[in-house]
Amino acid sequence: MEPTTWLTEQVVASFDGTPDPRTRELLTGLVRTLHDYVTKHDVTEGEWARAIDFLTRAGHLTDDKRQEFVLLSDVLGVSSMVDLLTNSRSPDTTPSAVLGPFYVEGPPPRAHGDDIADGLPGTPLWVDVRVTDTGGKPLAGAVVDVWQSNEDGFYDVQLPELDGPVLRARFHTDGDGRLRFWSILPHEYPVPGDGPVGELLAATGRHPFRAPHLHFLIQADGHPRLITQLFVRGGKYLDSDTVFGVKEELIAEFAERTGPTPDGRALDGDWRALEFTFRIG
Amino acid sequence: MEPTTWLTEQVVASFDGTPDPRTRELLTGLVRTLHDYVTKHDVTEGEWARAIDFLTRAGHLTDDKRQEFVLLSDVLGVSSMVDLLTNSRSPDTTPSAVLGPFYVEGPPPRAHGDDIADGLPGTPLWVDVRVTDTGGKPLAGAVVDVWQSNEDGFYDVQLPELDGPVLRARFHTDGDGRLRFWSILPHEYPVPGDGPVGELLAATGRHPFRAPHLHFLIQADGHPRLITQLFVRGGKYLDSDTVFGVKEELIAEFAERTGPTPDGRALDGDWRALEFTFRIG
Repeated sequence: MEPTTWLTEQVVASFDGTPDPRTRELLTGLVRTLHDYVTKHDVTEGEWARAIDFLTRAGHLTDDKRQEFVLLSDVLGVSSMVDLLTNSRSPDTTPSAVLGPFYVEGPPPRAHGDDIADGLPGTPLWVDVRVTDTGGKPLAGAVVDVWQSNEDGFYDVQLPELDGPVLRARFHTDGDGRLRFWSILPHEYPVPGDGPVGELLAATGRHPFRAPHLHFLIQADGHPRLITQLFVRGGKYLDSDTVFGVKEELIAEFAERTGPTPDGRALDGDWRALEFTFRIG
Repeated sequence: MEPTTWLTEQVVASFDGTPDPRTRELLTGLVRTLHDYVTKHDVTEGEWARAIDFLTRAGHLTDDKRQEFVLLSDVLGVSSMVDLLTNSRSPDTTPSAVLGPFYVEGPPPRAHGDDIADGLPGTPLWVDVRVTDTGGKPLAGAVVDVWQSNEDGFYDVQLPELDGPVLRARFHTDGDGRLRFWSILPHEYPVPGDGPVGELLAATGRHPFRAPHLHFLIQADGHPRLITQLFVRGGKYLDSDTVFGVKEELIAEFAERTGPTPDGRALDGDWRALEFTFRIG
């Protein structure tokens, strides 16, 4: 037996006593995967030391507002792969999308009709969405968390000068499973570039931009949680989103409008209107 | 094309513009490897979130005296695999072994004949080693760093109450490529168990022990650096070293002795003698 094969079998055998079968499967699979990778590519000590250094710096940069490991998983398309596998288990629902690193637990409750941009600059956006089950039956009282970046591409948690949450809200659907509010049109934005993941993108000539999108996290009693994003049809980077998050079914019309608004809000210029129905499992 | 295959090809293609071919190979190989792993094992969002949390905690525990990522790489046998690949490039030299997490740059210089244990309890050990090239020619003036754990299995950096380095030294070989000093017989010891890697070992029923060993790092002008370990023949855990570091060629006699010592040091009881010749490339 080759010494490398012998080593792999030794390590795999060391997990023979693992009580939980799934843990055993995932860890022995991980051992075989990593061993195959380093042997196939004849990885050197120096290269492995660089990988350890990359992970160390990612760990030191990660805190409650910054998640460099999630970002790494995102730009390598692993988050989207896990997400695809999740979707494949529930083909009749609206596709999910990755959570991303900017979700914050317990967003501020807002009332229907509110402007969650609180007057920030941007093209006004009227959002009119519904939540139904897979048969199309409206789901009343569903909890809908919404979050997005501002016109410059930043989330509130990236802006320490802000007083509190903005462009981030929790709603409950009405009796028709419906929910309406004002916000602003989301813009494309770069993922954080000042850490090891940013260095990786720069070293490989990849652009750091995400296609413009709105995040949704939807929870209704008796239904699995849906985490997803809606992308702006015609927006930039739909074909090269840096975290590989765009799915055709999640590209929505953010229709251009002028003149009177649905709730009588007085606006000078153009605005946009998004209508969408989420089907959850 | 399957959506999962399509996603993998998209991510691989995103690295097409990478200027350095080796970087492109390692990253596209990593993408295929990770994507294959999550699809083959149908990894769930919850499981992936646990992996991210594991890496995050490992990062927060890592500092200049503790390297949880190296430890993870060690207990999964990846460090040893990289080391095996290194050895295979230089079959005529003494085999290398992993550096481990306890090496400290710039150990204190000591003179031949010194006791690097500075009187710590333990069985006295006389070390008499030589450094030669692959043809057996002695190498004078080679820099030899040595480090080991104390009788309780701790390295000095794990003991904050210590005044400074102990069981850690830098020597230079004499005109015959030779080097002699006193230390104590190394003992088996557990790798640190208070972090995520310790949890992994506990959850899988694996013991955390390393077989007893002495570390050597040898540098001579015009020769590649050798990092290795010598294991105590007859010591515990030689067959199940938790970092898979034992190689047959690195198991050495730490011969039992009583009576007069080579340098006339007066000793009451038993002592041990280690003789070994390191051949470097």
